[in-house]
Amino acid sequence: MIEGKETVIKTRVLRHGVVGGGTGSFIGDVHRKAATFDGKSELLAGCFSRDWDVTKQTGQMLGLDSQRLYKTFQEMALAEGTRGDGIDYVSICTPNYAHYEIAKIFLQQGIHVVCDKPLALTVAQGEELADLAQRNDLLFCVTYAYSAHPLLCQAREMIRRGEIGEIRVVVGEYPQGWLADNLEDTGQRQATWRTDPKMAGISNCVGDIGSHIEHTVYFLTGLKIKSLCANLTAFGEGRELDTNAEVLVRLENGATGSYWCSQVAIGNDNGLRVRIYGTKGAIEWEQENPNSMKVTFANEPVQIYGRGSGYLYPEASELSRIPSGHPEGYYTAFANLYNAFISALIKKQAGLTLTTKDLDFPNVHDGIQGIKFIHACVDSSKQGAVWVNL
Amino acid sequence: MIEGKETVIKTRVLRHGVVGGGTGSFIGDVHRKAATFDGKSELLAGCFSRDWDVTKQTGQMLGLDSQRLYKTFQEMALAEGTRGDGIDYVSICTPNYAHYEIAKIFLQQGIHVVCDKPLALTVAQGEELADLAQRNDLLFCVTYAYSAHPLLCQAREMIRRGEIGEIRVVVGEYPQGWLADNLEDTGQRQATWRTDPKMAGISNCVGDIGSHIEHTVYFLTGLKIKSLCANLTAFGEGRELDTNAEVLVRLENGATGSYWCSQVAIGNDNGLRVRIYGTKGAIEWEQENPNSMKVTFANEPVQIYGRGSGYLYPEASELSRIPSGHPEGYYTAFANLYNAFISALIKKQAGLTLTTKDLDFPNVHDGIQGIKFIHACVDSSKQGAVWVNL
Amino acid sequence: MIEGKETVIKTRVLRHGVVGGGTGSFIGDVHRKAATFDGKSELLAGCFSRDWDVTKQTGQMLGLDSQRLYKTFQEMALAEGTRGDGIDYVSICTPNYAHYEIAKIFLQQGIHVVCDKPLALTVAQGEELADLAQRNDLLFCVTYAYSAHPLLCQAREMIRRGEIGEIRVVVGEYPQGWLADNLEDTGQRQATWRTDPKMAGISNCVGDIGSHIEHTVYFLTGLKIKSLCANLTAFGEGRELDTNAEVLVRLENGATGSYWCSQVAIGNDNGLRVRIYGTKGAIEWEQENPNSMKVTFANEPVQIYGRGSGYLYPEASELSRIPSGHPEGYYTAFANLYNAFISALIKKQAGLTLTTKDLDFPNVHDGIQGIKFIHACVDSSKQGAVWVNL
Amino acid sequence: MIEGKETVIKTRVLRHGVVGGGTGSFIGDVHRKAATFDGKSELLAGCFSRDWDVTKQTGQMLGLDSQRLYKTFQEMALAEGTRGDGIDYVSICTPNYAHYEIAKIFLQQGIHVVCDKPLALTVAQGEELADLAQRNDLLFCVTYAYSAHPLLCQAREMIRRGEIGEIRVVVGEYPQGWLADNLEDTGQRQATWRTDPKMAGISNCVGDIGSHIEHTVYFLTGLKIKSLCANLTAFGEGRELDTNAEVLVRLENGATGSYWCSQVAIGNDNGLRVRIYGTKGAIEWEQENPNSMKVTFANEPVQIYGRGSGYLYPEASELSRIPSGHPEGYYTAFANLYNAFISALIKKQAGLTLTTKDLDFPNVHDGIQGIKFIHACVDSSKQGAVWVNL
Repeated sequence: MIEGKETVIKTRVLRHGVVGGGTGSFIGDVHRKAATFDGKSELLAGCFSRDWDVTKQTGQMLGLDSQRLYKTFQEMALAEGTRGDGIDYVSICTPNYAHYEIAKIFLQQGIHVVCDKPLALTVAQGEELADLAQRNDLLFCVTYAYSAHPLLCQAREMIRRGEIGEIRVVVGEYPQGWLADNLEDTGQRQATWRTDPKMAGISNCVGDIGSHIEHTVYFLTGLKIKSLCANLTAFGEGRELDTNAEVLVRLENGATGSYWCSQVAIGNDNGLRVRIYGTKGAIEWEQENPNSMKVTFANEPVQIYGRGSGYLYPEASELSRIPSGHPEGYYTAFANLYNAFISALIKKQAGLTLTTKDLDFPNVHDGIQGIKFIHACVDSSKQGAVWVNL
Repeated sequence: MIEGKETVIKTRVLRHGVVGGGTGSFIGDVHRKAATFDGKSELLAGCFSRDWDVTKQTGQMLGLDSQRLYKTFQEMALAEGTRGDGIDYVSICTPNYAHYEIAKIFLQQGIHVVCDKPLALTVAQGEELADLAQRNDLLFCVTYAYSAHPLLCQAREMIRRGEIGEIRVVVGEYPQGWLADNLEDTGQRQATWRTDPKMAGISNCVGDIGSHIEHTVYFLTGLKIKSLCANLTAFGEGRELDTNAEVLVRLENGATGSYWCSQVAIGNDNGLRVRIYGTKGAIEWEQENPNSMKVTFANEPVQIYGRGSGYLYPEASELSRIPSGHPEGYYTAFANLYNAFISALIKKQAGLTLTTKDLDFPNVHDGIQGIKFIHACVDSSKQGAVWVNL
Repeated sequence: MIEGKETVIKTRVLRHGVVGGGTGSFIGDVHRKAATFDGKSELLAGCFSRDWDVTKQTGQMLGLDSQRLYKTFQEMALAEGTRGDGIDYVSICTPNYAHYEIAKIFLQQGIHVVCDKPLALTVAQGEELADLAQRNDLLFCVTYAYSAHPLLCQAREMIRRGEIGEIRVVVGEYPQGWLADNLEDTGQRQATWRTDPKMAGISNCVGDIGSHIEHTVYFLTGLKIKSLCANLTAFGEGRELDTNAEVLVRLENGATGSYWCSQVAIGNDNGLRVRIYGTKGAIEWEQENPNSMKVTFANEPVQIYGRGSGYLYPEASELSRIPSGHPEGYYTAFANLYNAFISALIKKQAGLTLTTKDLDFPNVHDGIQGIKFIHACVDSSKQGAVWVNL
Repeated sequence: MIEGKETVIKTRVLRHGVVGGGTGSFIGDVHRKAATFDGKSELLAGCFSRDWDVTKQTGQMLGLDSQRLYKTFQEMALAEGTRGDGIDYVSICTPNYAHYEIAKIFLQQGIHVVCDKPLALTVAQGEELADLAQRNDLLFCVTYAYSAHPLLCQAREMIRRGEIGEIRVVVGEYPQGWLADNLEDTGQRQATWRTDPKMAGISNCVGDIGSHIEHTVYFLTGLKIKSLCANLTAFGEGRELDTNAEVLVRLENGATGSYWCSQVAIGNDNGLRVRIYGTKGAIEWEQENPNSMKVTFANEPVQIYGRGSGYLYPEASELSRIPSGHPEGYYTAFANLYNAFISALIKKQAGLTLTTKDLDFPNVHDGIQGIKFIHACVDSSKQGAVWVNL
């Protein structure tokens, strides 16, 4: 058992608002808990649903001032952007189709943004948001939360230092099984919007989970995809959007890779797993067992790194709150993401210059890259799974 | 991915105070985060250390009103017990030796208590606390947090329903490796107090982690230990207290068992693992992988149950906040414990009658049973590891 | 512990010869041990190497009659085909390039054949061998030994009975790490011939291990590949042949899949793993842990099937020699393959009609399919990883 | 993939006889296959059962000369001890009660012995066999086959070299579940003799599997048990012999330990697992996954050693026949044991002096130690699980 970690001293608690995440959304509760986890942010305003009753009910449950519950996100952006004690930042956790419009209006009001992925439905939308954020000098975080796991940060640091050599092969997968049956026919909310092109956009499976593979590999290696070849299939009778995809990728340094994501792979929950092979070693990590990581150097025994262990780099250690052996998980990763964003915002509001390290969270450009990936996959597949450049 | 869960509607946010858990304590931060996790409790007062500077610093970090920071726990109990908006309940997360005195004074002030285990140093102390709590009609929770993991509750429910038959054999272990070297010589805080009889009491290893085995097996099976035979060893030069213990147990129904806990088992972090064998089936669970559980019925394949899955009993499902595949961990178990306690307290304060289910959290009587276990182990070992009755 | 299994009564011990497998070959010893494992075959003749000294030395070590050691395989085929007590069947375990010529001459001499994969370098060669075998009424086994593991036979049987529904997605991989460095530069024998196009043919990695994925998936599902898209890379400076390949496949029933094989994936030994997803369930098996298998039906817990368990189908049970919990492995799988071949040959020589079940071992047609797969992969990759039909 | 291993050159094939192991015995077939695995021994004579029909049938199945099938082991010992081409050694694989008498008469006839464990029913019997073997200058191997696994030999070598420091704690377990029900009531042969004191002796569970824990720990550490405290229970209605046992041990160097064996632990097959904790590191190995081993040095990541890997000591490497990644198992361990015994016997018959390394297989003294352990466990338990010295 190692020494514990304290929450560092804070100057001011940030004012937080949320769009989306009303009743029936699990991710909304995750956002709210993660944002307040380290005591630096307080939820004050929300438009939790297009259904005003849901918003009122959610707001009441959360003890919010009824004056700061809003019928529409537009109304909320204007009101909060105007009042003196308006929110510092907003979190967007609605179905995909709405991200762009919501982010846009809050950015226009000078409010910083945390947005679920995929950032937007088109690259043009994404770039418009990036421009807006830059012009208005606003922080923008996209919630690729997995990359905030301590051991993934250890892996990235090891790769940066060249410990596994030049990257040759990347293998990523994200199998789920929850859509093996047509669950949307039962009215289940998550299944309904994800399988509906009007809500989810041009892709379901690649957009929802394939994009996590793309981001995680990029996060670890810093290597962009040069071209890809994707085979998307809409398993499940009558479905319009993909529920399974196999993708071959070629990275900018000559490495090759294969990604597989599926929502019809019975026996899997959220099996995100990445394997990175270099000339000198290899790293393997699984989202469902985030407290350990497999590291192998050529001709040596496989090693199992443990989160919270003394031999980790500071970049990983500082993301652990509790000693090794006490499992951390999804909430703490999400909280790490929020903590990075909130810390940067506090520093920014204090008039300090933000360093690269301060800004080390997935941002609007990562979000755009994600949209490009999704579009490239869909384009490739539509043409018969041919290679397309990114 | 299943539907998410919301925090339920609350009537009033409870007022919370903490004794202990200043800088360098990891468990203090866990208590504070767990207590506020579901938004039903707010930290308002604290005496975080015997060192006034540490308390001030911690209080400032947490944004507390400096009027509600206290130099001594006695002062805190009196002040908070007197003021109209005083704390509803206090959490005690100090080294073991202080639990009794602190709990006592807060109970005397009519303040409900959440206390770390071991509850006290002697059974007499424990029973005094139990009497006090009962006389003053106060809730008392002892933080055996592991038993708040959803899958352990599933296991308990399965055992209660007789699904694995009559219990025959129980096997429990809790290996750690952090005290393989004499870490206390470096001044490391956790190691220092745990290996010091003045702070830890009559036992280090059994008291700290062996007692978790005892509680977990009891929690699962409802079976008390009739007699035990314990071999405690103080590995590590110059140590006075045990760092390793093997314990044989005989349970009240005729089942037998063996428990092993160690702080010198290199390669282990917090390896709490329990295996329960009945006439019809078996259940196995590990604290470090709390999101899955091994269940086997005679002559059938081993099954791996997953937290958050649809086939679980309500008793388990209602303790999951996020869908299966998104790992929950130590914080969520601790938050489940606090949620049970807080929900009961809210209901109690609303004047409602508490049911057995409302009171389904480890209480002062579980704490006393833990002290008895620790004392029996030490007694047995001192006599050469002979059998002693509990 | 279940009842053991006896070797069944045999009528005559078959006479066995071997080509290849001299000093430095691990597979030669495996063939010899597997062929004699069940006591129905005796090694009598051999041409173990192109190096006569190696053949003499190997033959002496094995206690063979020096009259039945041969300088060339041609000489051996003629001599053994002529003498009255000549070998009943020959095993071919040389580098790939020689399989065809050797198999051809033995078939011409009326000798049954067991041949390593890949069967030959071209489809034409393979078909010539198939014709020859048919015309001369000879048995021909290709040593895809993995498919003789009991649990893979259980899986096939479950799939045949429709227990996991219609197959949707197949995922196969076979990572190794032994060629991450240019091991052939040290003169290591296995590395030398496999990376040399003159000995290995048009492919190294796909030919050596990718073909095992192809066969295993076909063995399990009975589904042929309609088209594929393969990206082969020759990682390792100066190498001409592939050491890594990603392959997308479309199966004849509309299922899709992805295969990955690699010899530069540090941290892996012989990581053959197949995952088959159907509309009702899923099956997953790994060659390195062949005594257990993951089976999941929709909305149920994952199940772990154990080799030798009472709940398996006869098709799997009859391939186990020892009770569950006593690990079987590579030798027993290889012995199962030989046992199937030898049993069929004994029955054939006894003048009995062979049933489909008698002939249930990988044969020359499976071998041809393997060559087609390898060629399709190479063709696809040369054209830039486009889709090609098989 | 590393270079393969050849069988070394042999001078003469040893003549082998077997007592026991007729129809229904799985271990008989294992003995026979293991003895011939490396081509240095040939089975020529047998008395496979007390039932003459079974012996004849087994002998015919194995193609033995009917002249060398015997109605009684006495007859066999006398005949084989007399004839010029009599067997060099005999393997004894009968139920426990018969080991002593059979071993004795073969030793008296000057025939070397391989005997299943437990060696005999009493220490006196064991010592008589040891004396006889010594007086007649005969080799005597007791089939603790698990200790012939390559990675256990690696572990022993690491411990001998002090790599994990002074041993502090040992933890051993061997859970099985096959006797959770009263299987003997069905007439199942293995269950019937093992639960019958007339056939199995004074103990079932400790004798059958507990003794494997004792031997494995001794094999690894070289440390004898000074005293122990055992709690044996005969779960299963009407049973006279133990089916579960918990044992505390104190080793000669001051280390402590706990062993647990069970035949009623549903969900387990042959779960032999040993964990050895020293002052500097720890080693953990499981019989069901013998191709890998967990090694941890203080404050370093856990390492997974793989059988057949280049970084192993020669003592381990030389016991591997095939490269890492091709699983070896129960047969190869058993064959390693026979190979050690046979190699020593060949050398001895060649008039060469045997070194300690030549004699590095479990012998009659290990067998006696096993009997002492069993008796001590039974004695301790009968007295109420008190400590008894060995």
